[in-house]
Amino acid sequence: MELITRNRCFGGDQDVYTHKSDVCGVDMTFAVYLPPQSRMHPVPLLWYLSGLTCTHDNAMTKGGFQKYAADHGLALVFPDTSPRGDGVADDEAYDLGVGAGFYVNATQDPWLPHFQMYDYVVKELRNLVMDQLPVTDRQGITGHSMGGHGALIMALRNPSLFVSLSAFAPIVNPSRSDWGRKQFSAYLGEDEAAWSDYDATTLMSEVGWHGDILIDQGANDQFVDLLRPQAFAEAVNHRRQPCVMRTHAGHDHSYFFVSSFAGDHVAWHAERLLTD
Amino acid sequence: MELITRNRCFGGDQDVYTHKSDVCGVDMTFAVYLPPQSRMHPVPLLWYLSGLTCTHDNAMTKGGFQKYAADHGLALVFPDTSPRGDGVADDEAYDLGVGAGFYVNATQDPWLPHFQMYDYVVKELRNLVMDQLPVTDRQGITGHSMGGHGALIMALRNPSLFVSLSAFAPIVNPSRSDWGRKQFSAYLGEDEAAWSDYDATTLMSEVGWHGDILIDQGANDQFVDLLRPQAFAEAVNHRRQPCVMRTHAGHDHSYFFVSSFAGDHVAWHAERLLTD
Repeated sequence: MELITRNRCFGGDQDVYTHKSDVCGVDMTFAVYLPPQSRMHPVPLLWYLSGLTCTHDNAMTKGGFQKYAADHGLALVFPDTSPRGDGVADDEAYDLGVGAGFYVNATQDPWLPHFQMYDYVVKELRNLVMDQLPVTDRQGITGHSMGGHGALIMALRNPSLFVSLSAFAPIVNPSRSDWGRKQFSAYLGEDEAAWSDYDATTLMSEVGWHGDILIDQGANDQFVDLLRPQAFAEAVNHRRQPCVMRTHAGHDHSYFFVSSFAGDHVAWHAERLLTD
Repeated sequence: MELITRNRCFGGDQDVYTHKSDVCGVDMTFAVYLPPQSRMHPVPLLWYLSGLTCTHDNAMTKGGFQKYAADHGLALVFPDTSPRGDGVADDEAYDLGVGAGFYVNATQDPWLPHFQMYDYVVKELRNLVMDQLPVTDRQGITGHSMGGHGALIMALRNPSLFVSLSAFAPIVNPSRSDWGRKQFSAYLGEDEAAWSDYDATTLMSEVGWHGDILIDQGANDQFVDLLRPQAFAEAVNHRRQPCVMRTHAGHDHSYFFVSSFAGDHVAWHAERLLTD
């Protein structure tokens, strides 16, 4: 992997890398924050998956996570939200194709060859980061909106890979939402049986999670009807799943919401990653 | 003035307004953060002036100031860096014209009618903000790069308007820098006598400042030769001006540098604004 930029930030380094992705078949870009503690010893890692239209850059520049990561001694990784570049299929809509990978492995043309974001994150990028950077296998995952969806499905399906789990305003029931049905039809086909592995509410009902979960939601979120937090809340309560779901007065879906609670999420993960 | 956007952030409101500027002759946009305390009573105000190419948006989204402003109960205002729009003169270079007002009152065509950023900030926007928003006359000023220059010259020339003063990697000696000579020639003309009112090093030598000053600088700042901190340091030491100038290992000129020390600057201003 090739270092593109390095900026000192809160005593650590905010880096951006590109690498050749075998899974996606194109070069992929991601950002990683290494806190000062990582110069002495490997540190636990928190994954942050971004939402629709984002790249690795949005949360890196607007989320304000680095201060808290430095305080607690966690590394952060910010993957891209889709493959990009020559030969990568796209759609005119902002919510399909480039910037909108939805963290699935596409099975349908024209998305099939490149849109493999699930395997890319959980397998290829995880292996690369663990091989090349000073991080341990104590890892947590979070994300915003489409990235909150990604965080939930990846954790629920891979409980051995993730110690801790949270999300900001996640899409939790894409099989029943216009943020989901359109994309799953395109990427996975019309047979809805293939969708359930990518629906956090379905997964919560079927398998649950080995730990507790933190989910923050803005009460004034302009997209709340597409997120469907009520479906996940119902599944959580049916299962008696340990979970904190907070609805915050006045907050919308923006990075002003994410940054307002970034410190709480990093602290949540640190508490679970830094103890055995 | 017209509210364009409002986002809840750390319990307060991050707002963006436009208003008709008589001084600049066009509509101007600015951002203001009102902390939760401002719902109960007027609060002190910290001005943040941005650098070359920036708008009101950069520091608002990337600086991470809101958390600290909410912690301390300060309002923040982020003005634009120049007039914009139909009829406003511009130059192909990034460092002249739109996005590069240098916080001066232009006396030369074609800049004369609109590029009046000094009076815009110190007079018109100050009056508007104090008239329309819940802020007190306890005010401090800071800024980054070209905005650090703006903060220093505005404070040094208006000691009765500002209680507290700091800057991030400021341009401190524009009369002797390619970030300054080009712009002052264009905006103010070739007679360098007209430049001294806009040179922080000259002002420090001539009038000093009634309080102490905090200046942070990155040791790896790629633009340090254009900033000339050594000139300001010499003037400060000649005058025995109370001042803290910190040079930070590894840090560059980016917002990763600004955000890393945003908390220190807000605390510095709060300590001086919240006590008599």
